Amino acid sequence: MAQKTGALAKKIANLEAVFNPSSIAVIGASREPNKIGHVIVKNFIDGGFAGRIYPINPNADEILGLRAYKSVLDVKEKIDSAVIAIPAQFVAQVLEECGKKGIKGVVLITGGFSEVGKHEEEKAISEIANRYGMALIGPNCMGVITPASRVDSVFLPIYKLGRPRVGPISFISQSGAVGGCIVDLAARAGIGMCKFVSYGNAAVIDECDLLEYLGHDKDTQIIVVYLEGVKDGRRFLEVSRRITRKKPIVAIKAGRSAAGAEAAKSHTGSLAGSSEAYRAAFKQAGIIEAATLEQLFDFAKVFDQVLPSGKRVGIITNGGGMGVLAVDSLEDEGLELASISEETAKQLRASLPPYANVRNPLDIIGDADSHRYEVALNAFMKDSGIDVILLIILFQTAAIDSSVVNIAIRASDQRKKPIIAVCTGGEYTEMHKRILESYGVPTYSSPSSAMRAISRFIKYAEHYSKYNRLRKAEPIKTQK
Amino acid sequence: MAQKTGALAKKIANLEAVFNPSSIAVIGASREPNKIGHVIVKNFIDGGFAGRIYPINPNADEILGLRAYKSVLDVKEKIDSAVIAIPAQFVAQVLEECGKKGIKGVVLITGGFSEVGKHEEEKAISEIANRYGMALIGPNCMGVITPASRVDSVFLPIYKLGRPRVGPISFISQSGAVGGCIVDLAARAGIGMCKFVSYGNAAVIDECDLLEYLGHDKDTQIIVVYLEGVKDGRRFLEVSRRITRKKPIVAIKAGRSAAGAEAAKSHTGSLAGSSEAYRAAFKQAGIIEAATLEQLFDFAKVFDQVLPSGKRVGIITNGGGMGVLAVDSLEDEGLELASISEETAKQLRASLPPYANVRNPLDIIGDADSHRYEVALNAFMKDSGIDVILLIILFQTAAIDSSVVNIAIRASDQRKKPIIAVCTGGEYTEMHKRILESYGVPTYSSPSSAMRAISRFIKYAEHYSKYNRLRKAEPIKTQK
Repeated sequence: MAQKTGALAKKIANLEAVFNPSSIAVIGASREPNKIGHVIVKNFIDGGFAGRIYPINPNADEILGLRAYKSVLDVKEKIDSAVIAIPAQFVAQVLEECGKKGIKGVVLITGGFSEVGKHEEEKAISEIANRYGMALIGPNCMGVITPASRVDSVFLPIYKLGRPRVGPISFISQSGAVGGCIVDLAARAGIGMCKFVSYGNAAVIDECDLLEYLGHDKDTQIIVVYLEGVKDGRRFLEVSRRITRKKPIVAIKAGRSAAGAEAAKSHTGSLAGSSEAYRAAFKQAGIIEAATLEQLFDFAKVFDQVLPSGKRVGIITNGGGMGVLAVDSLEDEGLELASISEETAKQLRASLPPYANVRNPLDIIGDADSHRYEVALNAFMKDSGIDVILLIILFQTAAIDSSVVNIAIRASDQRKKPIIAVCTGGEYTEMHKRILESYGVPTYSSPSSAMRAISRFIKYAEHYSKYNRLRKAEPIKTQK
Repeated sequence: MAQKTGALAKKIANLEAVFNPSSIAVIGASREPNKIGHVIVKNFIDGGFAGRIYPINPNADEILGLRAYKSVLDVKEKIDSAVIAIPAQFVAQVLEECGKKGIKGVVLITGGFSEVGKHEEEKAISEIANRYGMALIGPNCMGVITPASRVDSVFLPIYKLGRPRVGPISFISQSGAVGGCIVDLAARAGIGMCKFVSYGNAAVIDECDLLEYLGHDKDTQIIVVYLEGVKDGRRFLEVSRRITRKKPIVAIKAGRSAAGAEAAKSHTGSLAGSSEAYRAAFKQAGIIEAATLEQLFDFAKVFDQVLPSGKRVGIITNGGGMGVLAVDSLEDEGLELASISEETAKQLRASLPPYANVRNPLDIIGDADSHRYEVALNAFMKDSGIDVILLIILFQTAAIDSSVVNIAIRASDQRKKPIIAVCTGGEYTEMHKRILESYGVPTYSSPSSAMRAISRFIKYAEHYSKYNRLRKAEPIKTQK
């Protein structure tokens, strides 16, 4: 048992080689542009991976300008990690070679194992990996992305699947397709990511191992999980409960319904378990449940802000109707509309035009410019009766320009209160939303989606403060 | 009473001059690029308005290359419609001149009336309009857009607020800001619009008049409404009930909550009424209620498809996980997962690769190309046990290219069954979504948002079929 625990710890430690290798072998590297083994090598080169790349191909001397090798055993230098994309029947042999070479981490892209009923073959693979203590992701997976170290073994070209900037969110996905399309969506929105893992059949490294690793990973501040099923429910609960005391986990469980569970079984062979059981387990473990794909990152990105110290929301808007909708959503979510203090009101009355009605929601009127936003935001930042600021900016209005973005970012950078933005619109709006997101100011397309995220944020802050001393002025980043 | 009805009918008939004028006066036209009266003239010119444009400005001879006039009375030719953007104190006089000139439709942009407590001034305006039988939109509104006739009196530049293509949806909004940002959002998504009206204070033409007009408008197939309150609840109910027997109305009611109603009162002076009362009224009138801004057009655009003849949904996907999520949402919405007929199954088994599991959801696997989508779609189109087709296309996968879009459009063009698409992703995906939308194939970013729209669609089809003979193969377009 002690040894087993030691083996597990080693395997998890070896995940470091998967996410941050100094050198990598691409086994199945190809000169054909439409081959997976070509796209992977190209993505490592184009992405600017700083370490050595060793293309492995028995029939090539050079691939994309790099010297190719017949086997990892032909490489003299140390290799940390390997990506394998070769037909299933050759996997066992090259994996054995990886073990002999002392490779610690493996991403096994190749499919054709347990998902098509080949359980024996998959068992053979995991036995080899376990014998050498290799951390193996897959098989039948889409790969791994670590934006900070430019690791990118996802075999889809960048024009089809955008890569996210460096950021605080790590995302593990049982489904490669769902994971990939969400990464693409996040990349476009300007959301930052720490690690992305499509873990496929989880023959060796499973969701619990990954959670364990990410729970300790100092770069990961928020964990997002797409699950169809869990292998070891008890361990999942235990690991999650431990992690959510330090950092939030947002998870979606696909296959909630009876018919959905049936579909999941056909898809990844997962035994989905009842909706109620999962919901209860999530709640017990302090996991934030997302009901839809949109909510997964809507909920996660809000945690880039400092944790709120209460549930009193102050709303600033340049469109009265949006304020009305925000208040509707606030009531739906059971949050509290903050009361503006007498001092704040006095200050606002002195600075805002006389036709602006000083109340919450604070409608600074359609002719508001950046300066008026600054006045309102400063007043709300100082008012101790306001815990969270919802900042609605309609970029369509004539007086608004890009400088309002800087004002929001400056307020957010004070790390005193969370600032959550709502901007609804087309191209011009989207451009500004991306800037806000890239500075960690979460933006939403509607008051309702923002308010739903705020409610999860506040609930988590309460959970967190049970186990930690929640200091108002301190960002979650420094509390690891 | 009869005369009053006659006046009302005339006023509503005169709305035609607002939406489709042959000639238009812009009162308050300006040579200053940052003035509202400049942007409006420019938008009419740039938009390609085919009729005559008469800039009205007492101090200019020429504006943007067009001859300017001191007053509409100085113009010899007939003028159908006027857009007024001058300070409030001059409005009554120019409106009187508009009446004398025989102008039928007026869009009064100018604010500073009842919304700031100037009720007498607003009453004076409406008396002038009513005396001449003019259809007056506003005051305090954002204007009107009719993409087909290139009418565009919205005073915001196009780079900030995109203009939608010609399409079947007409949208009336009490709030200018909310209306504007939704139009901008719709334009970017490729959604088509018939008429957009921001009706502001509704001094003369109110929401019921607009509904009446749009109910009879042959180009309007779907009506979308953003409401904060209703002036005449009984009439609203009566008009809506009549219209929903012919075409769908999707509405959002802002100020549902107690605090939201309070905010609405401060915003437009609307007496919001209780959430329950509105919900009941909407239901009674056959109005489809949207709970969020996103749902407003999510629900509306689905009606561009032929009405479904039942609630059995068939799902095609190239990502298994998305199929699982779709089935979860299907159960949430109380819809039925269609059973694939034996014949369809046989046909699919003969055409699809052996590793594809023939069931519903039909996972045509991540290596599916356009041809495989065609095979699956054709089979589902023929299967009489399937009423609605949910087509999930993940554009990230290697084998997918733009040709799959044509396959979806061709199936949709048969007008035999509704085709609803789900595509989740970044730039490459969004580009293809816009193409699909521009051909009337509604697309969604997640299975849950699509399924919610489908459920409203099916419910409306049931409502519609109570009052009309619902012929399966007939599009809603031809049933006016």
